Amino acid sequence: MSGESRVRVGIIGATGYTGAELLRILSGHRRCELVAAVGYAKAGESLVSVLPGAYGLPPGFSLAQNIEALDIAALSQRCEVVFLALPHGKSTDVAIGFRELGTRVIDLSADFRLGERSLHDAWYELRSDKAQKFADDAVYGLVEASRAAIQNSDLIAVPGCYPTATSIPLIPLYQAGLLELGPIIVDAKSGVSGAGRSLSLGTHYAETNESMRAYKVGRSHRHTPEIEQTLSRAAGSAVPVLFTPQLVPMLRGILSCAYVRPKVGVTAQECMLAAQAFYQGANARFVRVLACGECPSTGWAKGSNLAFVSYTFDAHTGFLLAQGAIDNLVKGAAGQAVQCLNVRYGWPEDEALTTLAIWP
Amino acid sequence: MSGESRVRVGIIGATGYTGAELLRILSGHRRCELVAAVGYAKAGESLVSVLPGAYGLPPGFSLAQNIEALDIAALSQRCEVVFLALPHGKSTDVAIGFRELGTRVIDLSADFRLGERSLHDAWYELRSDKAQKFADDAVYGLVEASRAAIQNSDLIAVPGCYPTATSIPLIPLYQAGLLELGPIIVDAKSGVSGAGRSLSLGTHYAETNESMRAYKVGRSHRHTPEIEQTLSRAAGSAVPVLFTPQLVPMLRGILSCAYVRPKVGVTAQECMLAAQAFYQGANARFVRVLACGECPSTGWAKGSNLAFVSYTFDAHTGFLLAQGAIDNLVKGAAGQAVQCLNVRYGWPEDEALTTLAIWP
Amino acid sequence: MSGESRVRVGIIGATGYTGAELLRILSGHRRCELVAAVGYAKAGESLVSVLPGAYGLPPGFSLAQNIEALDIAALSQRCEVVFLALPHGKSTDVAIGFRELGTRVIDLSADFRLGERSLHDAWYELRSDKAQKFADDAVYGLVEASRAAIQNSDLIAVPGCYPTATSIPLIPLYQAGLLELGPIIVDAKSGVSGAGRSLSLGTHYAETNESMRAYKVGRSHRHTPEIEQTLSRAAGSAVPVLFTPQLVPMLRGILSCAYVRPKVGVTAQECMLAAQAFYQGANARFVRVLACGECPSTGWAKGSNLAFVSYTFDAHTGFLLAQGAIDNLVKGAAGQAVQCLNVRYGWPEDEALTTLAIWP
Amino acid sequence: MSGESRVRVGIIGATGYTGAELLRILSGHRRCELVAAVGYAKAGESLVSVLPGAYGLPPGFSLAQNIEALDIAALSQRCEVVFLALPHGKSTDVAIGFRELGTRVIDLSADFRLGERSLHDAWYELRSDKAQKFADDAVYGLVEASRAAIQNSDLIAVPGCYPTATSIPLIPLYQAGLLELGPIIVDAKSGVSGAGRSLSLGTHYAETNESMRAYKVGRSHRHTPEIEQTLSRAAGSAVPVLFTPQLVPMLRGILSCAYVRPKVGVTAQECMLAAQAFYQGANARFVRVLACGECPSTGWAKGSNLAFVSYTFDAHTGFLLAQGAIDNLVKGAAGQAVQCLNVRYGWPEDEALTTLAIWP
Repeated sequence: MSGESRVRVGIIGATGYTGAELLRILSGHRRCELVAAVGYAKAGESLVSVLPGAYGLPPGFSLAQNIEALDIAALSQRCEVVFLALPHGKSTDVAIGFRELGTRVIDLSADFRLGERSLHDAWYELRSDKAQKFADDAVYGLVEASRAAIQNSDLIAVPGCYPTATSIPLIPLYQAGLLELGPIIVDAKSGVSGAGRSLSLGTHYAETNESMRAYKVGRSHRHTPEIEQTLSRAAGSAVPVLFTPQLVPMLRGILSCAYVRPKVGVTAQECMLAAQAFYQGANARFVRVLACGECPSTGWAKGSNLAFVSYTFDAHTGFLLAQGAIDNLVKGAAGQAVQCLNVRYGWPEDEALTTLAIWP
Repeated sequence: MSGESRVRVGIIGATGYTGAELLRILSGHRRCELVAAVGYAKAGESLVSVLPGAYGLPPGFSLAQNIEALDIAALSQRCEVVFLALPHGKSTDVAIGFRELGTRVIDLSADFRLGERSLHDAWYELRSDKAQKFADDAVYGLVEASRAAIQNSDLIAVPGCYPTATSIPLIPLYQAGLLELGPIIVDAKSGVSGAGRSLSLGTHYAETNESMRAYKVGRSHRHTPEIEQTLSRAAGSAVPVLFTPQLVPMLRGILSCAYVRPKVGVTAQECMLAAQAFYQGANARFVRVLACGECPSTGWAKGSNLAFVSYTFDAHTGFLLAQGAIDNLVKGAAGQAVQCLNVRYGWPEDEALTTLAIWP
Repeated sequence: MSGESRVRVGIIGATGYTGAELLRILSGHRRCELVAAVGYAKAGESLVSVLPGAYGLPPGFSLAQNIEALDIAALSQRCEVVFLALPHGKSTDVAIGFRELGTRVIDLSADFRLGERSLHDAWYELRSDKAQKFADDAVYGLVEASRAAIQNSDLIAVPGCYPTATSIPLIPLYQAGLLELGPIIVDAKSGVSGAGRSLSLGTHYAETNESMRAYKVGRSHRHTPEIEQTLSRAAGSAVPVLFTPQLVPMLRGILSCAYVRPKVGVTAQECMLAAQAFYQGANARFVRVLACGECPSTGWAKGSNLAFVSYTFDAHTGFLLAQGAIDNLVKGAAGQAVQCLNVRYGWPEDEALTTLAIWP
Repeated sequence: MSGESRVRVGIIGATGYTGAELLRILSGHRRCELVAAVGYAKAGESLVSVLPGAYGLPPGFSLAQNIEALDIAALSQRCEVVFLALPHGKSTDVAIGFRELGTRVIDLSADFRLGERSLHDAWYELRSDKAQKFADDAVYGLVEASRAAIQNSDLIAVPGCYPTATSIPLIPLYQAGLLELGPIIVDAKSGVSGAGRSLSLGTHYAETNESMRAYKVGRSHRHTPEIEQTLSRAAGSAVPVLFTPQLVPMLRGILSCAYVRPKVGVTAQECMLAAQAFYQGANARFVRVLACGECPSTGWAKGSNLAFVSYTFDAHTGFLLAQGAIDNLVKGAAGQAVQCLNVRYGWPEDEALTTLAIWP
């Protein structure tokens, strides 16, 4: 391996939590070399002054000392792949700029996640004709559901954190035809790092600690159509979702509790076996299907790319509870992005993603 | 008032979190006098050595310096009312002992909450004939739902924390006939104090902090039949409930998210107005009905007897989200118990319960 | 008491954490009536929309529904006393304005804490001649140290949180002549609410949780001269202090560890007895002197006006460790301010301050 | 490397937090193979059932599925090196057993840390003659201070967490003769994982969260003689230490604030330069010397083997504040143990220790 040249990658938006997590993961990647860390307001400052958590950067790590300003033309010369860790709406033009110069793009924003233009326009801002062309070519980067497409894609839209935690338990059940097709409920709880590094009263320590709350309830959170898109593709039919996101006083972790109706006679055990079958093989490393009724703790996934899945059926009400637990910054963002990179290049899917969860 | 004699009360089980919370609330009560704090393993020790949080006991507080052993005969002479803050199963005999000697009992355990014997036997231990006689006379102490009965009861079964947070938003809707009668989902999250003071790996700091998880999923948590009993009474028909309790890394607070189906044409606004109408009057102080779509934080109720209620309807899926937020140790336990006492004696319902929530 | 008219008070700066805590405490005060809650940016908004924690305002509480803008002339007509919970530097002019119209002022800022003009000028902004005149008349509101002066003061400067936690254990020792007069070390740790409600990266949840750090080390934190002033007055001689403030991931609480040198032969026991003697009487309610070597938890004081004090002597090094633990928002701010009010009016010193700590 | 055989290692005491952290670190080690995980009460159970945090064990990881019982004779055949993560007092016999059969021992307990027998006897239990012989041969594994000795040792006593955080900033100053030799103060704060996995009220979530406290104050914590031993060796003269350990509501991290007296004329800058000089070379990766006055956050080291060091001098009092910040489970335990292993075998000192800190 030491004889091969490494793939040169850049991170655009390196100063947020997702960018920092990409740094952490990529610093252990043996097949690629990080050649650029780009920021906006902080360009010119040293990385460690902006990201205290990166103080531990290995000195040998081939990272430009300072955060760079965005210069797409110059960066496209230096980078074979760029990760875009930018806010929604800011990613489209940057992604197109890089793609037009031949650089591969792994985009962690929502800009290319929704394939259908009208859907994107309704939930985000209007998509231009040009952006729609790129969106048509983009692949939704939930590796477990679309490995083959990712292998050939140069524009990958990494899934959102809630959609990842919710889809992983449900896709196998919809694909196997085990569930009724009516509306479902997704009651999901996230740690506060999911809200990002921008200051707001809602993420001010003294307002956030020792309290939890729902937000953007009803049909108002933008992950709603993304979850519906993924589940509808798996089901082959529209799956309406009521999604209730909630903020929990912890740094990392998502627990998604989905309530669905199995077809008559379907047991939790069958669901579990369907998931085991679906996730065996290359993914066995990341998706852990628990025994029925067992409950994952979000902490089990802290710092790792793991997703825990568990099913419980209640005959009295006819509902199946499908739990999914992940680290929102890893499997829900940066880890999944690196997993996409690995798949795209045909590397071991878990390169740089094999470290155990940090515990406690 | 100073001329009147105060009602003498005792706390049986004063060394747990609920007992300590009773101490805190009763220390500000102008109509009653705490004359006994009883414990089991800790009898004979000083209260402050067992309850660091009670270090602030006002010196003038007429509390026996030491924790006493349980002596029902002696205590019934000294106490007109006793609060039982004992584990489930331990309360029955103590309550009967006190009742047979004429002392009023406000029981915070589950021993008398389920009226139907077969239900109690199925979810808890077998109830004796004698205990069933007392259970028949006991009143379920959800003041908002049964004020009149509480006024005449000498054995009050204070509701559980999850049932309280869940029932307060839903009772008015069932009573007003606004909801369909099928099975419902209750996804509820609690702070760790709800797990009590007994040591376990699941509440060890390093295993609990920075992580959340569900537990006793499916039809396995004992609050399930209690929630069903309350809602079925309000609905006049059986309401099957799938209840998912979850543990969140914070000290206090419950957020209950119930998913129910309104009848065709019923709006969130109608639900909100029904709740406002139901809770106006004496209860306006404790139940706060928020505007539709507004989301309560559990922290708003920290240390207070408040319950926050909010409704959101999603036409796309047909579900109504009914949120309830309380402090599990106050409205979910000790505060509600004192509220029952106040109602029983015809005192102002909020006596000793008017302090603002502590924030942040 | 119901026959007497209540003293009308106002809170200037009601929307921060200290202002909110004043609201909480005053809502239980039987001798005064809150007639105005003043804010700057939020004037005109409803109190509950700005202060979620005040959702529980008792309906009968005579509080203007909306936050008012500051109008000193009008407010001085309505208020006999005002609490100023304003940032340092903003308080001086407001306090003078109120004083010139005859309204009593209890100022929670640092503007009048340092008596000596050159000291104030060096650590804060320059003090005008006029402001110095008022500063000369102001009384430092550490009740335990200057009760008599407070009884006759119309401008009370409420001590800072760190100085309170540090001074309460040390004043009795200096006054009793038990300590050497050389430089001392104060290593003090605070919960995050002490940093206030203004947004900053340093108090952003994801940067603050699960981490602790010192800040403003060396001779750079403005509480340094305040601690020195108090201890020097008690010692009758200058006491140089090296003060290391630290931020701990919790909402409330300060633990101050002071390292001092007792005179030869002085024991921890003597120090403990000196403190007990000093704090007996009216203050016994608030200052709890623990047995030597016992360690207070900050949580014991949560929500209460208590201060815990403990002494440990180490013969091997010759240092005495003097610990002080308080709730920074209560004894370290709002509670102490109300204690000053009570002393000023000759009311029971613990009026509205008798509730037990909230625990857990 | 793939051609070489790996060194076979075992973990004795794999089910505690230190054992789990050894698992996490060793799972990324390219030179050794974990062949045994030994436990006592849990022997026979599967590792993941005991250590939820190890759920992410890479499937290819050559780890016995089940926790084994201790069989020194059998294990010494299979393991070239064993890590002992056992409670103090339990390690001596196990270590001797392994050493007598030729297996190298890296002991994370305190059993061999104190070289002097009388010191060990005074602070721990009595050491036998035989144990003293092994203690005489043991090397104190603070790599930064004794790299050469570690290279030739077969019994390494890994330093305690507090001594590590405290010694790293101070050793260079004592060695360079920059400090006076009188008594010093060490005020150190630790996250709760340092208290281990055994249940106790003091580490019960509801008693620990939102509160901090000192414990074992005065000359009572067993890390006192260990700190004194290390500093005295560096100083060439006895250094008496007053050590105040404190528990902070977070999972990981230690911040040690040492207060020492520099010789006349010595500046913080000189101390910083002395530390930089001392820690350059192989250790530059792990010890980060900050600019004078800069304050490390413990979170910067979370999950990494880094130690942050910072100096601040206060001319007014004559004290130098020397801060040290580490992750107690990594540099303070398991990471330092693996660093010792790497040094012992002449591998890159940072093998398996290069991952960035996890942040936030």
